[in-house]
Amino acid sequence: MNIVTSPEQMQATALALRRAGQPIGLVPTMGFLHAGHLSLVKLARQAVPPSASPTGKSTVVLSIFVNPIQFGPNEDFNQYPRNFDRDCRLCEQEGVDIIFHPSVESMCLQDPAVFVEETALSKGLCGCLRPGHFRGVLTVVAKFFNLIQPQVAVFGEKDAQQVRLIQQMVRDLNFPIRIIFGPIVREPDGLAMSSRNTYLSTAERRDALCLVQSLQLARSLYRQGERDAGKIISAMTQKIRDIPSAAIDYIEVVDDATLQPVQTLNGAVLIALAVRIGKTRLIDNLMLPDDHLCQIPD
Amino acid sequence: MNIVTSPEQMQATALALRRAGQPIGLVPTMGFLHAGHLSLVKLARQAVPPSASPTGKSTVVLSIFVNPIQFGPNEDFNQYPRNFDRDCRLCEQEGVDIIFHPSVESMCLQDPAVFVEETALSKGLCGCLRPGHFRGVLTVVAKFFNLIQPQVAVFGEKDAQQVRLIQQMVRDLNFPIRIIFGPIVREPDGLAMSSRNTYLSTAERRDALCLVQSLQLARSLYRQGERDAGKIISAMTQKIRDIPSAAIDYIEVVDDATLQPVQTLNGAVLIALAVRIGKTRLIDNLMLPDDHLCQIPD
Repeated sequence: MNIVTSPEQMQATALALRRAGQPIGLVPTMGFLHAGHLSLVKLARQAVPPSASPTGKSTVVLSIFVNPIQFGPNEDFNQYPRNFDRDCRLCEQEGVDIIFHPSVESMCLQDPAVFVEETALSKGLCGCLRPGHFRGVLTVVAKFFNLIQPQVAVFGEKDAQQVRLIQQMVRDLNFPIRIIFGPIVREPDGLAMSSRNTYLSTAERRDALCLVQSLQLARSLYRQGERDAGKIISAMTQKIRDIPSAAIDYIEVVDDATLQPVQTLNGAVLIALAVRIGKTRLIDNLMLPDDHLCQIPD
Repeated sequence: MNIVTSPEQMQATALALRRAGQPIGLVPTMGFLHAGHLSLVKLARQAVPPSASPTGKSTVVLSIFVNPIQFGPNEDFNQYPRNFDRDCRLCEQEGVDIIFHPSVESMCLQDPAVFVEETALSKGLCGCLRPGHFRGVLTVVAKFFNLIQPQVAVFGEKDAQQVRLIQQMVRDLNFPIRIIFGPIVREPDGLAMSSRNTYLSTAERRDALCLVQSLQLARSLYRQGERDAGKIISAMTQKIRDIPSAAIDYIEVVDDATLQPVQTLNGAVLIALAVRIGKTRLIDNLMLPDDHLCQIPD
């Protein structure tokens, strides 16, 4: 496994691999890896199988970069958990070929002037409460796409809005890249894995189950025939209000393609929520009727 | 020479050429070609010499696309001159390998949602008077870069602000592309070549010389030792006001790197102007002290 910190070296390596016909799969992360990230590594390898490469090899790149321009001024950029040595061991075990781990300085993000911005899908959900967040995400992901030259990039469905925005960017800017949505990986009790779960105290860890439980309730109501978004949101809201440490940022039922709120659950919808447990902001989601990416236990 | 209209086919061709190690040089245009564009084709070929390619060949792609999202609602998108048959003959004579000529529909620009935006260099000069113009330019150029996969792209210095913005985008988004600035090509009497010159009546064509003449005056004052930007702008303004059909959009003296106005001409500066002759908006510019890209006659 190689660790590359220089963007120039990463790009030179990637261009050489492409000239050799060797496909590259990318898993972009902010590090502090968990089983969710590692599941994306497996998906990346499956998507660029060595057997289908003219060289008999493929390259899986996992990037680790806590991206300053996707954090707001009062958010947790400085506190975001980091453990590079542990991340390296996990990547080694998982068969990652290259860890790309650039510094903020080398990525020229101290005073950026060029941004990739999305003006439709990015407006609702997390985009409302985190102005500039998705602009920061898309800008850095575009940089990584140009530096790493992947044929395939894998993003986790927990960040449902993010992965849809990235797919939209790839289409609209014609990146020659296939985006794969990785299913949410959950703890045994159903909590969606997140590097931010490490912020939770023991009591908060228990309270944090209200996110998945509210989604279980929504799915149960849906299966009983409920199609009124307002009623589903009310039931979810009540479930979360039962937890004193929980404060709702949003609970929304949106069209899965447009991310616009719906009143009636027809066709493919996404139920997404963001809830603060103490000082920790967590997100989770459920797709209906096809919920295979969300992996919510019964 | 091949004519490609499908973005998918263009990208598949480009990726195959890159896998073969064959370098690609790109000349993006809006068509209605003149000697200025053809000089950029020569520069592109020089920058990707067949002799330096492992295949003994290189590919020069000239794109022809009147980009709707870089025109404002009251600008000349519909009137912009087009003559595809003539453009093809000129490209054939010049040894262009591929003309990329997509439709607006195939470029998915009817209702775009993802944009590339620059927030510093784009604010002054033409960016003030043409809101959204450079966002439209950068977005489409990013699309072309992803579709055509060039190692080198050549842009004309007449659009001085545009080429600096594109270079900034390439740096900030890490496109693996070298940008080459092509010198301004002028008519024998000094008028900068532009597809929009075709709009000019005989009288306006004569009046249009006030742009280059005002730049000649600026250079002459500079050579006499004048370093006060205000005095140079005043002299240029007076020169243009002598022409009744001319209306000044702007005359500015800016730092060549930041494009911020300067009061004193120290270091590398750009003197840029936009002037309407009748209904035709023309631009021209002069770099000082090194004016080799501007080709202003004595």
